Amino acid sequence: MGAAGPVTRTEEAAVTFDAMWRDLGAVGRDGRTGGYHRFAWTREDHTLREWFVGEAQQRGLDVTVDRVGNQWAWWGDPDAAVTAGTPGVVTGSHLDSVPDGGAFDGPLGVVSAFAALDALREKAFEPDRPIGVVNFVDEEGARFGVACAGSRVLTGAMTAERARSLTDGAGISMAEAIRTAGRDPEDLGPDAATVRRVGAFVELHVEQGRHLVDVDAPVAVGSDIWPHGRWRIRTLGEANHAGTTRLEDRDDAMLGFAAAVIAARRAAQAHGCVATVGKVAVTPGGVNAIASEVTGWLDARGVDQAAVRALVDDVTEVVADFDGLVVEDSWTGPTPFDPALVRRLATRLGGIPVIGTGAGHDAGILANAGVPTAMLFVRNPTGISHSPEEFATSEDCHAGVDALVTVLTDLAGART
Amino acid sequence: MGAAGPVTRTEEAAVTFDAMWRDLGAVGRDGRTGGYHRFAWTREDHTLREWFVGEAQQRGLDVTVDRVGNQWAWWGDPDAAVTAGTPGVVTGSHLDSVPDGGAFDGPLGVVSAFAALDALREKAFEPDRPIGVVNFVDEEGARFGVACAGSRVLTGAMTAERARSLTDGAGISMAEAIRTAGRDPEDLGPDAATVRRVGAFVELHVEQGRHLVDVDAPVAVGSDIWPHGRWRIRTLGEANHAGTTRLEDRDDAMLGFAAAVIAARRAAQAHGCVATVGKVAVTPGGVNAIASEVTGWLDARGVDQAAVRALVDDVTEVVADFDGLVVEDSWTGPTPFDPALVRRLATRLGGIPVIGTGAGHDAGILANAGVPTAMLFVRNPTGISHSPEEFATSEDCHAGVDALVTVLTDLAGART
Repeated sequence: MGAAGPVTRTEEAAVTFDAMWRDLGAVGRDGRTGGYHRFAWTREDHTLREWFVGEAQQRGLDVTVDRVGNQWAWWGDPDAAVTAGTPGVVTGSHLDSVPDGGAFDGPLGVVSAFAALDALREKAFEPDRPIGVVNFVDEEGARFGVACAGSRVLTGAMTAERARSLTDGAGISMAEAIRTAGRDPEDLGPDAATVRRVGAFVELHVEQGRHLVDVDAPVAVGSDIWPHGRWRIRTLGEANHAGTTRLEDRDDAMLGFAAAVIAARRAAQAHGCVATVGKVAVTPGGVNAIASEVTGWLDARGVDQAAVRALVDDVTEVVADFDGLVVEDSWTGPTPFDPALVRRLATRLGGIPVIGTGAGHDAGILANAGVPTAMLFVRNPTGISHSPEEFATSEDCHAGVDALVTVLTDLAGART
Repeated sequence: MGAAGPVTRTEEAAVTFDAMWRDLGAVGRDGRTGGYHRFAWTREDHTLREWFVGEAQQRGLDVTVDRVGNQWAWWGDPDAAVTAGTPGVVTGSHLDSVPDGGAFDGPLGVVSAFAALDALREKAFEPDRPIGVVNFVDEEGARFGVACAGSRVLTGAMTAERARSLTDGAGISMAEAIRTAGRDPEDLGPDAATVRRVGAFVELHVEQGRHLVDVDAPVAVGSDIWPHGRWRIRTLGEANHAGTTRLEDRDDAMLGFAAAVIAARRAAQAHGCVATVGKVAVTPGGVNAIASEVTGWLDARGVDQAAVRALVDDVTEVVADFDGLVVEDSWTGPTPFDPALVRRLATRLGGIPVIGTGAGHDAGILANAGVPTAMLFVRNPTGISHSPEEFATSEDCHAGVDALVTVLTDLAGART
């Protein structure tokens, strides 16, 4: 297992891992593409939540649901531990997906958490601190547009009012969706008592890039989340007839949009960042009408926040030539995980790579709320994620469970 | 009135024109944008059809509705004229609009037709041939996607089966829409008896460009419709995470689309045509997902069909560099109007410009069905159309009516 540290894998954990993976495999799967559609507060989400409760109960864990709907399964009494000044160690992730997403993003962290508990128990490990498994609700934001909604409301990073009023593509508000799912949306709100129970949070996740392929290692420790933001690129033109308006008389907003897409890619290259325009809306949007307005959504991230800012400045300059504007929708500066915890994991796991990531995670939200947090990444041979092709080998998944067992043994087995 | 030919304008016609224009002004108007939403077989369409019947009845005209739902108001007996071998002279246009369209595209032709009849009657003109006013249904194709649906089914250019099965954005079929409007969709079909009544068709329309501004003339005769077509530009990539996929690992379908938009504009310039990409669809279409597929709709037109083909070839070549394809959705070769009729109108109207157009019209469908057809265009000071800013001055509108009076006097007053 090399870089994954001490081998702690047990047969039992491998068997339960595979069984859980099979059970989840059918939920919300599109038979045509093989991708998953698991959105917050839907029937599929309900099935996944019932699955979580079932797995917890099989293991004799206590399931609690916080004010937001995040599910927690506890081995040991988390409140007694808070009182004793040694709050619990939590691992887990989320079970929802992007549209036509992969099987690993989210579920790998939850399944690995339960499998790690099984391995600890098979070794007759007796934790000094309670261990929790969490399933954060609505991490992808696929339905209501805001990523990490569950951890954001939990920690107060997003207000309950805003969350309740978010709407999905069909115009259904999160409040209505929660009510339909049988919960009271008025319960939504920050939940300090729940956050206090988390003495440390280690989220295991499939890697969403090819770093571990390049360095030939199955598992890495995550050190930080890159600065990232979203901007709207808005170019203006004049609606007119596509057939009868001479080129010299037209003001076509689509041309500015196309220039912005190309500028964003060039600037990303120049500044060592990544930039993506993955969504666009055209007004009036008719085949025979010149566009009067085009909105493109720019996602830009990078290791260095000044470089990301420079990228956006470059795009803004190009768009200005077309009477266009670039408006910031969101911006998150660099999010370092807890340096001491990162160092401790890296040391314990011996020679493992320590990497940053361009993706947002609930771990980042918890880190920003002051919870000591780190992550583990499992190698993804194609680097592809948010796609049915997202993948990790069985061997690497088990290496991830082993790493998690090592980490939990360390963190829950010795008073810090 | 200069280039508009002999002055035939009467006070009476000017008054009725203004009154009709006022009555129509409120139907389907968006109070915010000032644009019109008048789609086939809707409540607004029903109001417009009732208005047409009312105007016809006030003038003692016989209203007939053909198998497709196009409305015809006759001064004189069209069937007796067919039997006599001197079928009628028809003018008119349509009353529907594009989304957020202007007031003139369509209605100007219908209102001018009724006003021209008023002027002829005030002059005590007695036609030798019946004169008809037509309101073609669903010219813009804004609801069901096919332009000139009314004249296409009438002449057999589109089958009734295809028309009935077309669906709108809400999934409602044309058959259902027609049934909801109180008509039987099974009536739909080619209607040769109706087409035979049309000995000549002259459609008056607001110009959708700036030719008449440039040559400083209020009215022109239309000679032909340019060759035009629609293509789908399809570029393929790989869905992946916007934050974690390195530039060198990504295959972003949006880049090929942007290159195609810029290539289409450059090629249009090079080949003396016009090209527009006014509609686009992205898969998966998420802000944080690299596009796996982008479809853009290309509309290209020009005087010379070889030039339009060369333009599309240029775009195809650029798109091929991005593993993309260009697929033809529709193609219409040059549509000349009846040369003898065009010459006759131009002669009668004395020194008037004769121009081609890049826009499709019911007149083009009738010309392709063998009906002797021509058009009149009224100056548009901005050239803008399919937009709330579409405009023609009152003086130019009346010059259009005058030209129509001259044409009808000539065509209906003397056996050809």
